[in-house]
Amino acid sequence: MKPRGTIVTLLCCLTAFGLAQQTHVDPAVTLKDTGLNELGAYRILDELCNKVGNRISGSANADKAVEWGVSMMNRLGFENVRTLPCMVPHWVRGPKEEVILTTSSGDQIPVTACALGMSPGTPAEGVEAEVIEVHSLDEVTKLGDKAKGKIIFYNRPFDPTYVTTFQSYGAAGDQRFRGPATAAKVGAVGALVRSMTHDLDDVPHTGTTTFEDKDPKIPAAALSLIAANKLHRELAMGPVKARITLSCELLPDVPSASVIGEIRGSEKPNEVLVMGGHLDSWDKGQGAHDDGAGVAGSLEALRLIKSVGIRPKRTIRVVLFMNEENGGRGGASYYEYAKTSGENAISAIESDSGGFAPRGFSFSLPQRVINSHSNWRKALALVDIDHLTSGGGGGADVGHLEPLKTVLIGLEPESQRYFDYHHSTKDTIDKVNARELELGAIGMAMLSWLISEEGI
Amino acid sequence: MKPRGTIVTLLCCLTAFGLAQQTHVDPAVTLKDTGLNELGAYRILDELCNKVGNRISGSANADKAVEWGVSMMNRLGFENVRTLPCMVPHWVRGPKEEVILTTSSGDQIPVTACALGMSPGTPAEGVEAEVIEVHSLDEVTKLGDKAKGKIIFYNRPFDPTYVTTFQSYGAAGDQRFRGPATAAKVGAVGALVRSMTHDLDDVPHTGTTTFEDKDPKIPAAALSLIAANKLHRELAMGPVKARITLSCELLPDVPSASVIGEIRGSEKPNEVLVMGGHLDSWDKGQGAHDDGAGVAGSLEALRLIKSVGIRPKRTIRVVLFMNEENGGRGGASYYEYAKTSGENAISAIESDSGGFAPRGFSFSLPQRVINSHSNWRKALALVDIDHLTSGGGGGADVGHLEPLKTVLIGLEPESQRYFDYHHSTKDTIDKVNARELELGAIGMAMLSWLISEEGI
Repeated sequence: MKPRGTIVTLLCCLTAFGLAQQTHVDPAVTLKDTGLNELGAYRILDELCNKVGNRISGSANADKAVEWGVSMMNRLGFENVRTLPCMVPHWVRGPKEEVILTTSSGDQIPVTACALGMSPGTPAEGVEAEVIEVHSLDEVTKLGDKAKGKIIFYNRPFDPTYVTTFQSYGAAGDQRFRGPATAAKVGAVGALVRSMTHDLDDVPHTGTTTFEDKDPKIPAAALSLIAANKLHRELAMGPVKARITLSCELLPDVPSASVIGEIRGSEKPNEVLVMGGHLDSWDKGQGAHDDGAGVAGSLEALRLIKSVGIRPKRTIRVVLFMNEENGGRGGASYYEYAKTSGENAISAIESDSGGFAPRGFSFSLPQRVINSHSNWRKALALVDIDHLTSGGGGGADVGHLEPLKTVLIGLEPESQRYFDYHHSTKDTIDKVNARELELGAIGMAMLSWLISEEGI
Repeated sequence: MKPRGTIVTLLCCLTAFGLAQQTHVDPAVTLKDTGLNELGAYRILDELCNKVGNRISGSANADKAVEWGVSMMNRLGFENVRTLPCMVPHWVRGPKEEVILTTSSGDQIPVTACALGMSPGTPAEGVEAEVIEVHSLDEVTKLGDKAKGKIIFYNRPFDPTYVTTFQSYGAAGDQRFRGPATAAKVGAVGALVRSMTHDLDDVPHTGTTTFEDKDPKIPAAALSLIAANKLHRELAMGPVKARITLSCELLPDVPSASVIGEIRGSEKPNEVLVMGGHLDSWDKGQGAHDDGAGVAGSLEALRLIKSVGIRPKRTIRVVLFMNEENGGRGGASYYEYAKTSGENAISAIESDSGGFAPRGFSFSLPQRVINSHSNWRKALALVDIDHLTSGGGGGADVGHLEPLKTVLIGLEPESQRYFDYHHSTKDTIDKVNARELELGAIGMAMLSWLISEEGI
């Protein structure tokens, strides 16, 4: 299993198309060997993390990320490189985020917290009220008037017995997504939410919270797990007040864009396969796993396809979606484009679950159809990707394409460490392993190449 | 998929034995939920890493590790806790390990290196000679007299195109294992070996090198990848001398021991299933992944079996093997014990591939036999372990049991990061994720429990 010479494999690739299926294995091996020899995804991620940095929608860094995306695609020699404009929310955190508890014994204890994305700010002197701890949204609704003037503290932890951490996130996430709005409806004046993580430390994890236009809005902050546990213990001893002071605010929408580039199909250019991740991130850390990994992995996948000399029959396109985190405007505008472009959006792979060792892909296809694509399984086994399962929706960005009957595909990496870093200052490039990231990129390249050859 | 109450699951366990196969799923779920709720493996590992520390055979810390192992097994309530004595090599590194290059332009450049385990030391003033770079042992043998008086530099890198990093290690490892002895035979005076890792940094990775009794012995050191690359570049510009100064020495063998504890089988106590890892480590870092993970994982697996109320039909035994790294004396002495004990050593699971997310087990069984154990697959799928493959030898310690027809089983975790840390100062507990480690322990508990119920 030595690295093959470039010339030999290039010839393999150039001659393999249109021949019998078993010759497909050669380009797959070449994609694997080229990827693992060059580790391009990590170099791309390094630029995004260290030259651009974190890049929340509407920020100067998000603009820089769009420019960088265009520049990178041009440097990689992609075709039809362009931006797809969209308006995005412009939420800014500002310098102040502070939660101070006043315990039943009168002690004042600052605890580590950060504003949830899209939260309104507080007056300069903060909002202070008695804290009520709850474990579900229902519980808050049932509190009714008792919640009036109070701060609601959502403290249902990640369920550790789910093996896949995304299930724990799914099961706890409503507290962050809709908890503050639910509390606001019954008259609460603020919300504190236990961070969405298994990792017991003093780092809070931000993320979006949603208020419908008609909802009253209250300031909402995430507590680190250590802070949440402390508040829980203090509440066991007697009434606790919290003062929440946040300087965040939601400004008017601003223009931004997703970034698009491709290799045009040689036979059916109008049939389009998308690979993508989201270009925006939260404003903590570097957005390395979320979703620098998806951006770098998608770019690398198309770079690999190009660099090994594959000319796909169908068009393979990379879309770097803007604003996945707090609006999904890039995904929505790409859907509007796809609907009206006259193209046939046959498949879309999303990578938005981190840059860890890949284990599988989920497909919006019945299992028997997945199984019938024996070349997918054969090629992906080369990089130890063997969970090819039915039922995934691809992800928040490509999910917009569902009405077009696009086959939605999600890359599924090993999940254990993802929420240790997610939406926090810990999501930095040192948490990404170059080979793990590359294996995911190679998997996306293999799958896109095979779909471009064989259709679905 | 909420955590189940302890009483309910305990009752499940106590009533499940002897019933139809489908009831097996309950103890498996209970093992999973208990493990993921309690994360005991990480707490055990924390003691080993932070209270004992690294523990090379023959050292005071190795003695401490033996005492700790006995104490831990007693605290966990294991039965028949005892030590199994063996004599072990006593190699000590000493304070000095230095490699200084003198380049063709006369510059003196210190580079980062460490003695290979079992290397002899040098005179106080070191050994200095011209360096010859090679990529294989054959090349050295072919050099013949040209190698006389020289320092041989083995610089064949890890092949990045292997997906499993253990394959890269297997393919490059002869340079470290036998390279120095091969160089010594043709008259070289020293050996430098590129570290066995993918990770491009300035940390050298030690590990054992082997001289047969009849072999001449020469000092041998590992270079960090940055040091190896620098030496390679300097050699491209002209002759380079290296001065190697090492204070290591091999002292007479000393007594040590493996540590053993078990739960006796209720029906066939004479049929013994082993789970184990090695208690010794290298004298760098904390031996967290290598092999604190195997020690902690095995102990936790038996703790889980006990804690959920399983009384196995066959005896399940944990063996913490001494001296895997530079002699295998603990594995050999356990074989001698097993051969003469009158017991039937039916299976042995070794965990010595790190504490990363588990992906599979390899078995010294034909694939059809593995596949016939449908309960293995069913239970292990609960923790996402689904590579159940034929062909593994279990590992260096349990491999000794092969003549007894014991079924040898190896836990196979995700491998990408293992050699980044292996045998270096980087192998510390902060590189271990508590949930990943626990999932491996749960997998070992499930498999041991099922073998204890069903045999093989």
